[in-house]
Order: sequence, then structure tokens, then C-alpha cells
Amino acid sequence: MSPLPRVGITLGDPGGIGPEVVLKALTQGESLPPAEYILFGSARILDRESKALGLSPAIRSRTTAPSGEPGLFLEPVDPAPDAALRGDMRGDIRGRPDAANGAASFLAFETAVARARAGLLEAVVTGPISKTSWSLAGVKARGHTEYLETYYPDAIMCFWSAALRVALFSHHIPLREALVRVRKDGLEAFLRRLEQGLRRLEPGHFELFVAGLNPHAGEGGLMGREEETEVEPAIRAARAAGVPANGPFPPDTVFRQVLGRPDRVAVALYHDQGLIAFKLAAFEAGVNLTLGLPFVRTSPAHGTAFDIAGRGTADPRSMVEAIRLAALSRRA
Amino acid sequence: MSPLPRVGITLGDPGGIGPEVVLKALTQGESLPPAEYILFGSARILDRESKALGLSPAIRSRTTAPSGEPGLFLEPVDPAPDAALRGDMRGDIRGRPDAANGAASFLAFETAVARARAGLLEAVVTGPISKTSWSLAGVKARGHTEYLETYYPDAIMCFWSAALRVALFSHHIPLREALVRVRKDGLEAFLRRLEQGLRRLEPGHFELFVAGLNPHAGEGGLMGREEETEVEPAIRAARAAGVPANGPFPPDTVFRQVLGRPDRVAVALYHDQGLIAFKLAAFEAGVNLTLGLPFVRTSPAHGTAFDIAGRGTADPRSMVEAIRLAALSRRA
Repeated sequence: MSPLPRVGITLGDPGGIGPEVVLKALTQGESLPPAEYILFGSARILDRESKALGLSPAIRSRTTAPSGEPGLFLEPVDPAPDAALRGDMRGDIRGRPDAANGAASFLAFETAVARARAGLLEAVVTGPISKTSWSLAGVKARGHTEYLETYYPDAIMCFWSAALRVALFSHHIPLREALVRVRKDGLEAFLRRLEQGLRRLEPGHFELFVAGLNPHAGEGGLMGREEETEVEPAIRAARAAGVPANGPFPPDTVFRQVLGRPDRVAVALYHDQGLIAFKLAAFEAGVNLTLGLPFVRTSPAHGTAFDIAGRGTADPRSMVEAIRLAALSRRA
Repeated sequence: MSPLPRVGITLGDPGGIGPEVVLKALTQGESLPPAEYILFGSARILDRESKALGLSPAIRSRTTAPSGEPGLFLEPVDPAPDAALRGDMRGDIRGRPDAANGAASFLAFETAVARARAGLLEAVVTGPISKTSWSLAGVKARGHTEYLETYYPDAIMCFWSAALRVALFSHHIPLREALVRVRKDGLEAFLRRLEQGLRRLEPGHFELFVAGLNPHAGEGGLMGREEETEVEPAIRAARAAGVPANGPFPPDTVFRQVLGRPDRVAVALYHDQGLIAFKLAAFEAGVNLTLGLPFVRTSPAHGTAFDIAGRGTADPRSMVEAIRLAALSRRA
């Protein structure tokens, strides 16, 4: 393993704010940890964005051999022209979904993940992609997480910020299915995997605060029984295995218990339980974090923001935090 | 109707912070709208709290005849001793649930509601009660809202603050049941009742922002179909009837659309969808508001706070806002 962490960074959809926030994050005097930061994307897009932003980033070219030096590198990734199913073949479409852009952002992501799977990267930071662009380009995976889940079905989706940290027990499924999935065995296994994944992150020890499923966490069975039959037994079993899990707590107060406590992580039992809280408490500097992989994967919590693409006004804070979290994490 | 609004205020559980925040709210120089503020509770408890807080409120006694003057009045309510099933018969227990306190707080609430039902009050503000105290005292209703629902099954629970306003389509039922209840007809009727109820409040016109049920509001059916089969049709039907309803929006972003917009109300399809958002965004000055009654009912969003009862440190802001909202509302 290289003495310096090797952090892959994909530019995201060239038609969105991804390339802009990556460049801003890496050049505008933010104090990032020393690392080899390796960009995956098109040299032409990087050049276009740098000129538009008036930046002159010192980017060295690099393929898979580690340089052993901290700095900014590019592993150029350009789809063959025939990968662009339709749209402007030069990939200059901005502000809307586009097949060529989808092909480009997918290939960059696929390449970075392949490097990480081969042990050549400690972490991958992904710029925001457009699911519609991917779909137009004929990509089968619906998004980053779904692609990673094909290799790592136990991937855990987390949302991370200084203010609030949330792990999702389930995510992109109907609420009705999410309810059915709340079972003791699956939840216990999840808590154990989560605790293992969290060991890679600062500060290295986290208390888990598990939300209940029902109003007031069921209030002793008056408003639902899943807490008694599934959630409490899962927490008890996880604790017996050494996982610092607590709860279940009323869903409408558990996030306040975790807020502002960097050593606590809230466990949400379904997508919106966690995301309603996170987007209110921590959106601007929020980071999407995937655990349960042999490498850490982070991304800004925002999307492509097509409406402001190309204006130079995108806020890079979330990307800065995504890069920082990736660079400080330890490989499993 | 009296030219001045008549606002009943119950002291809440004598063992909690209710009497303290009521007295602080009404005496500490807060600019409340001119009204007849009529307290419902025990003169002895009021006296005890006033002395402990060093306050000398000018409280006139009053029964049901309107005075026609703004000011502070007391309609004394003291349970007969045999209503105290157990506990200290003088009602001096503080900091924990107690049968005598439960009997006292229930009788004050029951009396105030009876006056409002008789058309003698425009609004009722309820101090925080302990559900356990009520239960110890043999009260059948589980809480304020459940009692009101026995008279008014269409009561609507809302949470109100300057930052965020949320109405709950369902509240104290298991999440599993809440899901089943999301049906077009019921939701359409709810949106119509809500719009009628909101007309009593400032500014008199509100846009309704309805949350979806599933992640990303179903994303076109990929993550659930209730948006297409129930929520959208309900919104369409309500709009056709003149209700300014919009959506369904992704549950994790709809509250940000409403945040800081006093003319917007979020409609949550289940308890925690709304309460997770409200307790993060607006807890300190939040007000619990019940619509769908012939009078307006408000209460602070906090509970009895037994842990700090009797210390004089309770924050009256939420009670101040509850009183202000009640005093500014119009009778149906």
C-alpha cells in the first residue's frame, strides 16, 4: 500500500456542476489532507472548466503507477465516439441530460471503481451524475450506489456532515417494502456491518442511535409492535456482539440526540426518515458516504444542479467535505 | 360574539412546567394581542407559581360572562378531593406523573373545552399535560387531541412556527396503518378541511405543499405507486375544488420548500414525516395547533419537562407563540 492515500475523484456529468466543484475544491486554498488526488475524466472538459473559472490547476498525468507524491493527477478517460448514442458528440451539452455526457460520466466512474477494486485507490469521490443521462447512454445501473451494489450487495448508504451523521437501513425502495424489511436478523447484521465500516473513519468509535419505526417508537406497543418484535431484539443482539447500538428512539427526536455530536451516528430504518432530517440539518456541507465496500466512497450530497451549470456560481463546500472525508479514511 | 377575542388557557399538569410558562408568557412584557385571557386551573397552584417566580400577575376572577376588557382572568377549577385517586391530595407533587395532578389538569382542560364548545371562547391554549398522570387519574382519553377527536373526529393536528408549518394527515397510529390510510378520497377531504381551517389564521391564504409517501415521491413509479394512484389524484381533485394544493413532492425536500415561507404549509402523510422535520427546524418556538374544530386550539410543542419543573428555568417562548397564534385566529 502506498504511504500516501490514493483518492480517485470522478468529474461527474460534464453537463452539470461536477467538474466545476471538483476544480474549485482542489485549487481554491482549501486545506485538504496530503494525498494523491487522481481525477478520472476528460482532459478537454477539465481544460474547458479551468478556463471558464480562471483557474490554472497543476495537474500531472498519471495512469496506475503511484507517484508517491502528494498532488493532483489526471487519469484521462474519454469514451470512444460510438459510445455516445446521441447528443452533441463533443460532449459540450450543458444544463440538461445528454447521452454523450452520460457515457462519459459512467466510464469515468467505472474506471475509478475498477482501480479501487484492484487495490490501487484507497477511496473514490464521485462527482454528481445524471441518472437520466446514464439512462440515455444505455447504462443499466440507475446510479452510483446501485452500480456498487452489484459488486457489493451489502453496501451501506450514509449521509455525513459535522452537524449530523445518518446511516440508512434501506433506501431506494417503496416505503411499503421498507417496512417489511425491518426484521431482527437483517437489522442485526446491518448494525454489525455498519460498525465495522465506521471504524475506518475519524474518530474511529461511534455510538449508534437507532430510530424506531412507528410514532414515539411504538410507545410500548400502542402505536406499532415492530420495535418490540424486531428492532429491540436486533439492538440487543448487536450489543451482545460488541456493537455500541442504542435505542430504538422515537424517530422525531433521535436526530436531535445525534445533532452536533461527532461521535454519534443515527440509524434510519427507511430512506426519508434519515433524509428528511439530513437535508434540513446538514444539506449544504453534506456528504454521501458508502460503507461496506473494501474502499470508502464519498460524494457531495447535491446533484448535477443543471440549472446553474456553467455559471461559475456552484458552491464547492460539499465536494470539499467529500474529498476530506475520503482522504482521511482508512482502507479496510 | 365578543368584540375582544376570548382565549382560554389551561395551566397543564401542576407537576410540570405548564403553570410556570403560562405565567411567564402572560407577565414578562411579551407583546400579546389584546384579548380576554382566561386561565383555567387552581388558584392555589397559580399562587404557588407566582410566588416562586417572584411575579405579581394582575389576575381578576371571572366565570363565563365576558368582561369586555382586555386582561388576565381566572376561572378557578379545582377537582373535588375524591377525584384524586392517589398521590398527594393537595396536588403538590412535582417532577413526576401523579394522579391528583392528572385529575386537575384534565378537569381544567375539560372545562375550557366545554366553554369553547358553548361558544364562550374563540380559542383554547392548552398547557402541557402528562399522559401518564391522566392515565393514573383514570382519564380515558390518551391526550388533548384524542379527547378533542371524540367530539370532532375530523380534527387536524398541525405544527406551527415562523420557520415551518406542517399539517399531519395521520398521527398516532402505526406506520403500517398510516400507509394504508393514504387513499385518494380521504386525502382529498383532508386537504379541503385543512384549507378551510387555515382560513382562520394569518395571513389567511396558504399554499399547501403535499409530501409524497415514497422515496423521491415514487420517482415515476420506480419506488412506489401511491403517488400516482392516490396522492396526485387527491391533489388534482382538491385543486379543482379551489384548494391551493401542490405536489406530491419528494418527502426529503418538501420541508425545505416550505421553510421560511410563511404562506406555505407542508402536508405530511404520516406522523414522523412531519415531526422529524418540525422538531429539527422549529422546535424551540414551535406550537401545536388543532384545526377542524369550531374554535382554534393551540399548545406549546414541548411537554411537561418534569426534569426541570419547579426550577424557574423553563423557556416560555413556545407558550408565548401558542397564545399569540390563538389570539390572532378567527372563530369559524
